[in-house]
Amino acid sequence: MDTLTALQKFREHVESYVPVNDMEWQALASHLEVSALKKKKYFAEPGKICNHIGLVVKGAVRYFLVKDGEEITGYFSFENELLSSYKSFLTRQPGENYIQALEDCHIVTLSYNAMQQLYDDDLIGKKMERFSRLIAEHYLICYEDRVSAFITQTPEERYNKLLETGGDVLQRIPQHYIANFLGITPVSLSRIRRRIMKISA
Amino acid sequence: MDTLTALQKFREHVESYVPVNDMEWQALASHLEVSALKKKKYFAEPGKICNHIGLVVKGAVRYFLVKDGEEITGYFSFENELLSSYKSFLTRQPGENYIQALEDCHIVTLSYNAMQQLYDDDLIGKKMERFSRLIAEHYLICYEDRVSAFITQTPEERYNKLLETGGDVLQRIPQHYIANFLGITPVSLSRIRRRIMKISA
Repeated sequence: MDTLTALQKFREHVESYVPVNDMEWQALASHLEVSALKKKKYFAEPGKICNHIGLVVKGAVRYFLVKDGEEITGYFSFENELLSSYKSFLTRQPGENYIQALEDCHIVTLSYNAMQQLYDDDLIGKKMERFSRLIAEHYLICYEDRVSAFITQTPEERYNKLLETGGDVLQRIPQHYIANFLGITPVSLSRIRRRIMKISA
Repeated sequence: MDTLTALQKFREHVESYVPVNDMEWQALASHLEVSALKKKKYFAEPGKICNHIGLVVKGAVRYFLVKDGEEITGYFSFENELLSSYKSFLTRQPGENYIQALEDCHIVTLSYNAMQQLYDDDLIGKKMERFSRLIAEHYLICYEDRVSAFITQTPEERYNKLLETGGDVLQRIPQHYIANFLGITPVSLSRIRRRIMKISA
């Protein structure tokens, strides 16, 4: 994907939250970088401060932690979704997550320092504040749903919900990562899938 | 607590995120309401749209869901913490949570409509955007920690973390709500507490 197309996708993402005119877009775009992230490479790693927020314009990434030698998958981001080790990015402390490319990715990134400059910019400051507020609110709602799911739903209910809301992108995630994301073993997931197929048959 | 003291606490809360001068404060304060919420009364209920965000200036509330006739505690808010059925407040859809006073409370509230007016206000709009961005980011971090805890920690580890970070307010929460919050039965919590007391004895 060429740089202009990638930047245009970032603009569309911003404008899905806040309209920006050409002059405002120039001020913002001057801080953006387009980069490639090859499959298996990391966007964020534990113990390092995450200095960028990014938009996936092509590909997909997986968020995971390692505990007692085991990978625990927390989240995925696909095309037109943001990615960041958000807590590390915001608090300026080393993160705990890996963010790894599931496929070859193209990402448009904005650094923490550029973000702060943009907030204080006379021209685009207020719009950037609103953009970031709406993003934080959007992810807050996602997290609220995810916490609710953990405390109220069985793994089977969580899996059904994922099938309902996950759409086509689910095909792109290996089954053992999906099991991991649901907090169950691959064997349990196979059992759930067989039960569902029987019911719908 | 008198109204002026309650409003002053709200101002201090805002100023812990964004400084406001007296004129800006007047613009904001004209939209605030101070109200009492008696023990056991509800700030939010399932099936209703949550129209307010509030600051607890005295007392404490508990967030819970009911599933299959059982209460599942998701969260608590104490003095100087915000409360809202956030997803419902932001999306304007009926919520799923109860928010109930654990003790007699005093709450300073701001309505959804007033919030939108303030965002568009020439005088204080940008500061309100920043205030709400920082709040959303703060709660996003809390949620990120809570999701991490669910997928990486045992109930005993979650309880130890709660003891570490919860402080004095833990004394004010009945044990069965704490068990419920940790996703375990009161009997399991007693067992964990006995084990910890033995280790530290």
